[in-house]
Amino acid sequence: MRFAMPMRQSQLFTKVSRELPKDETSLNAQILIRAGFIDKLAAGIYTYLPLGLRVLNKISNIIREEMEAIGGVELLMPGLTPKDVWETTGRWATFDALFRLQSADEREYALGATHEEVVTPLAKKHTFSYKELPFAVYQIQTKFRNELRAKAGLIRGREFLMKDLYSFHADEDDLNRYYKIAQKAYFRVFERVGLLDRTYLTFASGGAFSKYSHEFQTVTEAGEDLIYICDDCQLAINSEIIADQPSCPSCEKTELRQAKAVEVGNIFKLRSRFSDAFDFRYADEQGEKKIVEMGCYGMGPSRIMGTAVEVHHDERGIVWPASIAPFRVHLLALAQKENDKAVLAANQLYVELVNAGIETLYDDRLETRAGEKFAEADLIGCPIRLVVSDKTLKEKSVEMKKRGEAAAELVRMDKIIGTLKSLNQ
Amino acid sequence: MRFAMPMRQSQLFTKVSRELPKDETSLNAQILIRAGFIDKLAAGIYTYLPLGLRVLNKISNIIREEMEAIGGVELLMPGLTPKDVWETTGRWATFDALFRLQSADEREYALGATHEEVVTPLAKKHTFSYKELPFAVYQIQTKFRNELRAKAGLIRGREFLMKDLYSFHADEDDLNRYYKIAQKAYFRVFERVGLLDRTYLTFASGGAFSKYSHEFQTVTEAGEDLIYICDDCQLAINSEIIADQPSCPSCEKTELRQAKAVEVGNIFKLRSRFSDAFDFRYADEQGEKKIVEMGCYGMGPSRIMGTAVEVHHDERGIVWPASIAPFRVHLLALAQKENDKAVLAANQLYVELVNAGIETLYDDRLETRAGEKFAEADLIGCPIRLVVSDKTLKEKSVEMKKRGEAAAELVRMDKIIGTLKSLNQ
Repeated sequence: MRFAMPMRQSQLFTKVSRELPKDETSLNAQILIRAGFIDKLAAGIYTYLPLGLRVLNKISNIIREEMEAIGGVELLMPGLTPKDVWETTGRWATFDALFRLQSADEREYALGATHEEVVTPLAKKHTFSYKELPFAVYQIQTKFRNELRAKAGLIRGREFLMKDLYSFHADEDDLNRYYKIAQKAYFRVFERVGLLDRTYLTFASGGAFSKYSHEFQTVTEAGEDLIYICDDCQLAINSEIIADQPSCPSCEKTELRQAKAVEVGNIFKLRSRFSDAFDFRYADEQGEKKIVEMGCYGMGPSRIMGTAVEVHHDERGIVWPASIAPFRVHLLALAQKENDKAVLAANQLYVELVNAGIETLYDDRLETRAGEKFAEADLIGCPIRLVVSDKTLKEKSVEMKKRGEAAAELVRMDKIIGTLKSLNQ
Repeated sequence: MRFAMPMRQSQLFTKVSRELPKDETSLNAQILIRAGFIDKLAAGIYTYLPLGLRVLNKISNIIREEMEAIGGVELLMPGLTPKDVWETTGRWATFDALFRLQSADEREYALGATHEEVVTPLAKKHTFSYKELPFAVYQIQTKFRNELRAKAGLIRGREFLMKDLYSFHADEDDLNRYYKIAQKAYFRVFERVGLLDRTYLTFASGGAFSKYSHEFQTVTEAGEDLIYICDDCQLAINSEIIADQPSCPSCEKTELRQAKAVEVGNIFKLRSRFSDAFDFRYADEQGEKKIVEMGCYGMGPSRIMGTAVEVHHDERGIVWPASIAPFRVHLLALAQKENDKAVLAANQLYVELVNAGIETLYDDRLETRAGEKFAEADLIGCPIRLVVSDKTLKEKSVEMKKRGEAAAELVRMDKIIGTLKSLNQ
């Protein structure tokens, strides 16, 4: 997952399309397909094309860093999970969204939709004493869910990427302590991917073992959830529990703002729901066997990618936050022939950008009109557009424009690397 | 996938086990499970634990670099693939190893066992003219195969990681040209992962469209294939075609050496097998529609990991090639109490190693006996073992031993970083 790799558009096999994709009603998927980030294979099932995979990897690596900062150790569990572990917890019969299948030797499996059934017996094999607690493991892995409706593009897929972290504790106090630490780590991720200002910690149903769980809900019209926001406390309540909890959980205000939102993360005190099922116990300081307390913490890189597009776009295309843009700079050469001055100058600038470690997508195509190049650059949405043309070269300059702003400026060719390095974008 | 991250064994939740795992007959899985690299969930289905995931990522990144060096652009296709694309090629009925399943809305899918059925229509959407050819795309992705026998550990899994590259060409000559380039890239991968000296380019059955395909077979007793080697030409023939091809394809020698081997890669001239099925054509210079020629190139990072263990081990455990070892250095502190001189000195050395960018696994456990630490270090198999104890400290030194060698040497504490940097290992 190296990101320094530069890319010439003449070598990128994907094309930008002018047409709206058929059979695609969600805005995020429409734009991402047109811009050549993803391809739709079936309802809720997408290929990540080179540009899209770069975005997905950037989001995943931000999540990785924040999970490791709170002590998470990465592993990778299988997608094929045998029926017996789901029977142990009783979820084989009750988990509707499980894809079920059989192998040639007639064993039954579920495709992993979540991994409590795998991680709990795994952790049990390696944990014996209180000295080994607490610990936390996570993975970033493809999940499968048999969703009836899959019409929201990357926001609700039948196949999607998920980060799931699981924590293991000696008692409830320690679980509560870590749960707060994880909450903060989640907000750091949403800050880094550019979703913080419209993402709310949201109280949701807690299941049998906990009063509440917490979701992280990002406000957007594309959201499939309805939340009630307390703007004083920056907290929200999911509509599923608004009947039981009609006021702000913090200030108890009852005038709450209703909004559609996407659940970009959720965290859950599992308590002993799964450790009971697998009889996962440890020896305490007196040698007494005690049940392990667990938490789980989910977050979807592909869903974050779709949500980011819903939030950060305009009528011309995507406006990527710099942290997750496929490339920081989109360099356009406006020229028709291989030996045109503008092409030679752009080639040289491209090498300088790459050598300076600035991630650059280079539109080096010769037969594409200037207007088309501009339109495609806006659609793809890299933070900074640089244009080299005969006109800019007369001023020994390159034209620089930020994607989110209307104004362009000329920057002297010998100052452009320094200017880009000084920009906080 | 950052590898600089250091690791203290006290924080690594997995444990090394003295016992042979039950229900596991393959040597690679037995050692990898005992050493805490993988966990077996079901036949042919494994979890990659933190140490194992590091090895898998290192192998994957070596493959990535070599695929990008031959122009491969990375993307990521789905695991769920709809029935209709398999019907288009006729493989829904004939591909025995496909896992088949249904969604809630009664659509049928196969789990991706290979991706010609996805990549061909995808490439077709983006390719119109001869100017866009040739190009090559690849992915590193989880594959699923409904194998009847799955008893070879990581060598034959029901779920496994695979790199699959697909190339697209205007004519057969260009396919042949690229096919040779890919062959060389494969040997560079096998050289870098430490398998070159026993890996042979092997002639195998070519199917309907090509006389031969080529496999890359690594000689080991764990192999499920039988090959016939010409030691003069360093070529081999798979037993499946030995009746049709009883002599060396290069020198025609008939005395060939028989050996068991693992197929660590295979490359195949698909020709128009799949472009015909999807009617994938391009416009040539005269505007005439011509069929696209395709090649496919497979290689399994998880299978390479299992094969590397079969090849590189001794009676005490794994002897990782440095390029794919989970850590380069295994640092052992031999002491019982937190304030022991040896612990303080090892803590300091650990920080220096990390700051010097040397990947280090630090056995900082206080209650583990020295003999156990040595045995575990041998089992885990990092290339270089460093030991800090009261005895070495008397000489102001650290003991250094290479995993593959018997002799240890004392190196002055203030020289150890420089010594490690100068080692070609």
